[in-house]
Amino acid sequence: MTSQTRPRLLDPFVSPGAIAIIGLSRSAIGSPVSVHTTLLDMGYEGGIYIVNPSMTSAPGATVCKAISEVPKTVDLAIISVERTMVPATLEDCAAHGIGAAIIITQGFADADDIGAALQGRIDAIIARTGIRVMGPNTIGLVNSLSKFTSSFIEVARDDLPVGQVSQSGFLMMGHHLVTNESAGYCTSIDLGNACDINLIDVLEHYETDPAIKVIECHAEAIEDGPAFMAAALRIGRSKPLVVLKAGRTAAGQVAVASHTGAVAGQTRVSDAAFRQAGVFQADSAEELRSFSKSLATFGSMAGKRIAIMSFSGGGAVLAIDALDRAGLELAELSPETVKTVAGLFPDWMEVKNPLDIWIPVAKDLNHSFPLVMNALLTDAGVDAVMCIYCSYNLPKYDRYDASGYIRDLSAASPGKPVVCWSYGQDIEGFTRTIEAKRSAIVYPRLDDAARALAILAVQGARQHAAAAPATWPPANAKAEAIATGILHKSKADGLEYLFTEAFEILDAYGLPMAKWAAVRDEADLPGRTAGLKAPLCLKIDSPDVIHKSDSGGVALGVGSGEALLLAFRDMTAAVAARVPGARLSGVVVQEMAAKGTEVLVGMVRDPAFGPCVVFGTGGVHAEILDDFAFRIAPVSQEEARAMIAETVVAKILAGARGQAGANIEALVDVICKVSQISVAHPEIQEIDLNPVFAGPGGASLVDARFILADGGAYSHEGCGP
Amino acid sequence: MTSQTRPRLLDPFVSPGAIAIIGLSRSAIGSPVSVHTTLLDMGYEGGIYIVNPSMTSAPGATVCKAISEVPKTVDLAIISVERTMVPATLEDCAAHGIGAAIIITQGFADADDIGAALQGRIDAIIARTGIRVMGPNTIGLVNSLSKFTSSFIEVARDDLPVGQVSQSGFLMMGHHLVTNESAGYCTSIDLGNACDINLIDVLEHYETDPAIKVIECHAEAIEDGPAFMAAALRIGRSKPLVVLKAGRTAAGQVAVASHTGAVAGQTRVSDAAFRQAGVFQADSAEELRSFSKSLATFGSMAGKRIAIMSFSGGGAVLAIDALDRAGLELAELSPETVKTVAGLFPDWMEVKNPLDIWIPVAKDLNHSFPLVMNALLTDAGVDAVMCIYCSYNLPKYDRYDASGYIRDLSAASPGKPVVCWSYGQDIEGFTRTIEAKRSAIVYPRLDDAARALAILAVQGARQHAAAAPATWPPANAKAEAIATGILHKSKADGLEYLFTEAFEILDAYGLPMAKWAAVRDEADLPGRTAGLKAPLCLKIDSPDVIHKSDSGGVALGVGSGEALLLAFRDMTAAVAARVPGARLSGVVVQEMAAKGTEVLVGMVRDPAFGPCVVFGTGGVHAEILDDFAFRIAPVSQEEARAMIAETVVAKILAGARGQAGANIEALVDVICKVSQISVAHPEIQEIDLNPVFAGPGGASLVDARFILADGGAYSHEGCGP
Repeated sequence: MTSQTRPRLLDPFVSPGAIAIIGLSRSAIGSPVSVHTTLLDMGYEGGIYIVNPSMTSAPGATVCKAISEVPKTVDLAIISVERTMVPATLEDCAAHGIGAAIIITQGFADADDIGAALQGRIDAIIARTGIRVMGPNTIGLVNSLSKFTSSFIEVARDDLPVGQVSQSGFLMMGHHLVTNESAGYCTSIDLGNACDINLIDVLEHYETDPAIKVIECHAEAIEDGPAFMAAALRIGRSKPLVVLKAGRTAAGQVAVASHTGAVAGQTRVSDAAFRQAGVFQADSAEELRSFSKSLATFGSMAGKRIAIMSFSGGGAVLAIDALDRAGLELAELSPETVKTVAGLFPDWMEVKNPLDIWIPVAKDLNHSFPLVMNALLTDAGVDAVMCIYCSYNLPKYDRYDASGYIRDLSAASPGKPVVCWSYGQDIEGFTRTIEAKRSAIVYPRLDDAARALAILAVQGARQHAAAAPATWPPANAKAEAIATGILHKSKADGLEYLFTEAFEILDAYGLPMAKWAAVRDEADLPGRTAGLKAPLCLKIDSPDVIHKSDSGGVALGVGSGEALLLAFRDMTAAVAARVPGARLSGVVVQEMAAKGTEVLVGMVRDPAFGPCVVFGTGGVHAEILDDFAFRIAPVSQEEARAMIAETVVAKILAGARGQAGANIEALVDVICKVSQISVAHPEIQEIDLNPVFAGPGGASLVDARFILADGGAYSHEGCGP
Repeated sequence: MTSQTRPRLLDPFVSPGAIAIIGLSRSAIGSPVSVHTTLLDMGYEGGIYIVNPSMTSAPGATVCKAISEVPKTVDLAIISVERTMVPATLEDCAAHGIGAAIIITQGFADADDIGAALQGRIDAIIARTGIRVMGPNTIGLVNSLSKFTSSFIEVARDDLPVGQVSQSGFLMMGHHLVTNESAGYCTSIDLGNACDINLIDVLEHYETDPAIKVIECHAEAIEDGPAFMAAALRIGRSKPLVVLKAGRTAAGQVAVASHTGAVAGQTRVSDAAFRQAGVFQADSAEELRSFSKSLATFGSMAGKRIAIMSFSGGGAVLAIDALDRAGLELAELSPETVKTVAGLFPDWMEVKNPLDIWIPVAKDLNHSFPLVMNALLTDAGVDAVMCIYCSYNLPKYDRYDASGYIRDLSAASPGKPVVCWSYGQDIEGFTRTIEAKRSAIVYPRLDDAARALAILAVQGARQHAAAAPATWPPANAKAEAIATGILHKSKADGLEYLFTEAFEILDAYGLPMAKWAAVRDEADLPGRTAGLKAPLCLKIDSPDVIHKSDSGGVALGVGSGEALLLAFRDMTAAVAARVPGARLSGVVVQEMAAKGTEVLVGMVRDPAFGPCVVFGTGGVHAEILDDFAFRIAPVSQEEARAMIAETVVAKILAGARGQAGANIEALVDVICKVSQISVAHPEIQEIDLNPVFAGPGGASLVDARFILADGGAYSHEGCGP
C-alpha cells in the first residue's frame, strides 16, 4: 500500500489488498501463461480469490463458486471471461461492492461492431454503478513495490523510479524483454481501450507517487489533447515525462485504429503539442528506455560541454560526430586539467579533448585512468564525461579493466553524468559493474549516449531558467461579440467558406488588413471606394468561387475612377463566364499592400489537440516550401516569437543581406490574434491568411479564408465517452 | 594462401608465407598485448621469426639477432620499433630483400613535425627500394582464412564473406567487440597513415578476392576522390560497398586531422560523391555492421513490400513506423494468403498486414506459426517478412518458441529476406538459433531492420535496372581554347574574381546569357549598346567591387538613350564615392531577362573530390533557403536531371498551381556545361551563376562570378605523397 493518507483513484489497482480473478480456467493453474502463476511468482501478499464454479482448489488462492462468495476485502477484480460475458460479470462485481476491475478480454472497440456495442454496455455499467475499470483489451498492471500484477506473462521486478503508462501490452511488458536488462520501471500500466481509467488518470497518479521520479508514456493516440498538455505541463515541473508516440505514419495510423479503436492525431500537431508541453519525445522503444533511465539516473546536466576519454582515437572521432548530431559541444579542457594529465602522454601528442588515452592506459591503467577521469570530472568547463573503453573479460586483460574506476569515480561526482560506450567481449558483464551504483550508464551506441545527454542538458536548462510569465494580447469582448454575430449569420446562410465575413472578423480583432471595401454592384462603386488609394486590387466575392485567380476573379494594380469601373465589369463578366451559375456577392476592392516578405499565418483544428496555429513561409508556393512552425492555441507572445524563430523565413525576416529586418512584433500580434480568434470561435475549422506581407513598417494582410466546421460547430472526433 | 594465379599487390600482407617481427620486447612473450601471442592464438601456420638481439627463444618462433639473419622465405616484416628507428629498420628489411612491411609504430604524420619528417624518410625508402608498406600507425591486418594477423590484441575469427578496410584500428578490431557477436568480416585491414598501401589498393584487392562478397569501409578522409569513385563504381557492379564516413562535423574533422594526419573532405560533397558512386552509406559503427551483414546474408530484395507477423499488435505499430521512416511499404496480402490463414483468427479480427498472431500462437504455435510464415513467404506480393516474436528461454515457455521455424522456413525461401526483432529474456540465445543457417537476421532495433531492408531494395533495383548509357553535351574544343586564353590572361593580370571574363567564357560555351555588352566609358556607350533592348540592367565592372548591390553598382529597369547615359554616370560616380580607389573597368549593360523561377547553378572545387557541381534555389536568399543538390563533375545529362529532381525548387519548376512548367532540359544543359567548364579549366576554383531564370521558354543567365584558384592553378590539398 502507498504511504499516501488520502486514497487515490488508482490505489485499488496499484496496491490492491485482495483480488478476485474471474475467468481463469482450470488449465491455467500451473500454466506459464496465467495471472495466477505470475502473481505467485511476484510474491503478491494480498488475498487471491479465484471465481470458477468448476474448480475446487488452487495453490495460494481461495476458490469461490461465484462472485457473490468472495469476501468484502476484495477491492479489485481481474476479468478475463469471454467477451459477451464481460458486461454481466462487471455488473455482478459492482453489485457485490467491488470498486475496481481490470478487464483483460479483448475484442471490444478494438475489434468489430459487436465489440463496440459490448464496450458501450460496459460504459453504461460504469456510469450507473460507479465501478472503475482499466481496459478492456489490456494486460493491466505491474507494480514491483506492491508485488502485484494482473499480467498473464512473467514480468521482471525493478526498483528504478520510473512509472510507465502504455497503450499496448507490448511496452508494458517491460524493457527487460527488449534489452535483456531489468524491467526499466517499478510500475507500469497498460491502458488498453481506456473506456474509463485513461492516460491522464495514470499521469496524475504517478505525479503524486513518491516512488516515481520519471514518467514514461507509450501513446498510440492522445484522446484529450488539452487535458494531456495541461497535465504534462504541470507534472513536468516536478517529474520529467518521456513519450513514445507510436502510429506516426499514415499506414501506422491504420494499424493503430484497428489496434485500440482510437483515432491517432496528426503527427506534426502532436509533435508541436509535446514540445509545447515540455515532453521529451523518444523515437523508438529503446530510446524511451534510454531517456527515462538517463533522467532517473542523472536528473539533469548543467551545460552542453562534453569531455571524451577514449581507448581508441577512431572511437573518439565517431563520438564527436554523435555529439554534434545531438547538438552538444566538445568541452575545452582547463589549463589545470591539461597540466594534470600532460605527463601521461608522449611529447608528440597534443593533450586536448578528446583524449585518446590508449598509450597511458596500456602503460599503467591503474595510475593513468583515475588521474584522467578525476581531472575531467573536476574541470569546471566539463558538464559530462563520455568514456569509451574496452571490456575484455579474460583474466589476461585484467590490467585493462576500467569498470571499477568508472563506477566509483562517477559515484563520487553526482553532479556530472558519466556516459559510456564499450567494445569488448563482455559488454554486459562490464556494464553490470559500471552501473552497480547507478552513477554511470553504458549505452549500446554512441548516438544513444549523445541523445540522452542532450535531453539531460534541456532538463538542466529548464530547471535553471526563471519561469518567465507568458504574456497575451488583451481580451477583446467587443470583437468577440461582432465575430460571433457574423459567424452565426454565416452558419444560418449555410456558408462553408468565409471571405468578406473573414475580413470583417479580422478587422474587428484589429488585424492589420490592407484597406478594403466590399462592393455589391456598379452603383456602389464610387461611394464605397472613395477612401481607397490606387493602385488597387480586386477580388471576386462568391461562395461558389474558391480559387479566385483561376476563375478570373483577381485583378492587381488597378487604377481608380474609370479604370476601376472597367476592371469591375471585366471581372464580374469573366467569372460569370468561367463559373456559370456562380452566385456573385460582389467584388472586394483593396489597396495594394506595401510589399514585404510573404508569410503565412493560419490555424487548423486538430481532432485531439484543438486549434493549432501555423506560421511560416507564405505565397503561392507555401505548401511546396513547407516551412512551418506549429503551436496549440492559446499561443502566448513568447511562444509566437519562438514559432517565428523556428522557421527558415525568420532568417529572411531578420534582414538578411543588409536589408532592413521586418517588424517581428507585428507578426507576433497577428499570430496571437489568430490564436485568440481560434479559441473564441470553435465554429471556425481553419484559418488561412496568405500572404501576410511582413516589412520594417509592420505586417499587412491582403487575403483571408476561413473554413467553417462541418455541420457548423466544432466536434470532437475522438472516440472516448 | 589465395587461389589466384597472378600474384596481387596485397598477397604478401594478406597471406604471408613467413614473417619477421621486429621490435618485440622480451616482456611481450606471453603478454596478452602482443602480436606473438595473437599469432599463436590464431593458429598461424607460416614461419615466425622474431628479430631481437637480447632474446634467446620464444615459443612457436625462431629468434634472430638481426634482420640479416632471417631466411629469404620471409615476405613480410611487422615493425614496431621506436619511431626514430623505423626508417633504418625499413631500410634494412628492403636491403635484405623483404618485399613488404607493416609499420605498427605511431607518432608520424599523425603527430608532430618530427613525425612528419620521419614519415617523409619512409616515403623516400619506399620510392627508392620498392618495398611496400602498410601504415605507419596501424594495427595492420587480420585474415581468418590465412589465420594471419599483425594485431597485438586478440581478434575473433569469422568466415562471413565481408572484407573490411578501416582508417582506425578501432573498427578493424571487429564488430564482435561492439556487439558481442562473431567478427563480422573474414579479412580486415587498418590503413593507418597510408603512406603507401592506400584505400584503393585494398578495395581492388577485395574486388578480386573470391572469398569476399561485400566490402565495408571506415573512412575518416578520402584522399583521392576521383580514384575512389571510379573504383567504387566499378567494384559496386559485382560487390556492394558500404561506407562509414567518420569525422563528419567540423569538430570531428579536427580530431580526424590529429588522428591520421589527413584532411577530411566536406561532408556534403562526400555524401554526394558516395551516392554517385553507388556506395551504401552507414551512419554508425553498428549500421556499418548491419548493412554489410544484411548484404552478405540476403544479397538483395526484389521490391519494397514488407509483410509483418507479430506476437504483439503494439510491436506491429512500431514496425510500421520504422518501415515508413525507411521508405518501405506494407505489402497487401493476396486473397490466397488471407484465405489460408483466416481460420486461425477470431471472427472479429480483420486478417490483413500487419498480422497480429498472438491469438493463434497462444492457441497452438506449432500449427499456426509455420502456416502463417509460409503463406507470407509464398505470397507474390510480399518481398520480405518482418517477424516480431518473443524469446523466453524458460522451459515453461517452450510452446512459444518460434526460432526453429524462422530458421528453417527462411532457409527454404532464399529469395525473400526474413528480418526479425525479438523481445524476451534470451534474445542472444534465440538469435543464435535463428541465424544458424544464415538465412534470417535478428536486428537489435526495428529501425535497424527497416533500414537494412531499404538498402537491400536499392541493391535489388540496381541489379534489375538496365544500365542506361550516360549522355553528355558534345565536347567544345573551340570554347575550351577561348576560355583557356581568357583564364591565362586573367591569371597574368593577377585577377582573383572574374566577371566580364566569366561572361565571355559562358558565351563561348553557349550558355544562355541575357544579351550584354561591356562598356568602358561614356564614348563607347551608344555603339556598344545599340543592339540591346530596354529595359536594361547595369552592373559595375571592377576587380575591387565584389558585392555590387551594396556599393551602388547595380541598376535595374533602365531605359535606353539619355536614361542609359544618366544611369551610367550615376553608377560610376556612386561606386567611386562608396569604394574609394576602386579600379573601374567599366559597366556591363545587359537586357533584363524574362522573369522566371530563380535557380542557382554553381561549382565548388573540393580538395578530395575535385569539381562539385551545385544546383538549387537561387536568388538573394539562396544560402538561407539551402535547397541544393550536389554532384561530382563530370555530370551527365541523366545526373543533371536527377539533381534537379532532388531539390524543393523542382516542384515549383514542374509548374505548381496551374502555371506552365519551366524548360527542364535548358537547365540540364546549363548544369552539364558548368560541369564541362569545371573539368576543362582547373584554374577555376568556384563558379556562381545566380540567379539563373528558369521559365517555359528556357533558362536565362544574368549574373556570373568565377573565383580563380589561389595561386592560379588548382592544387590538391590532400596530404598524400
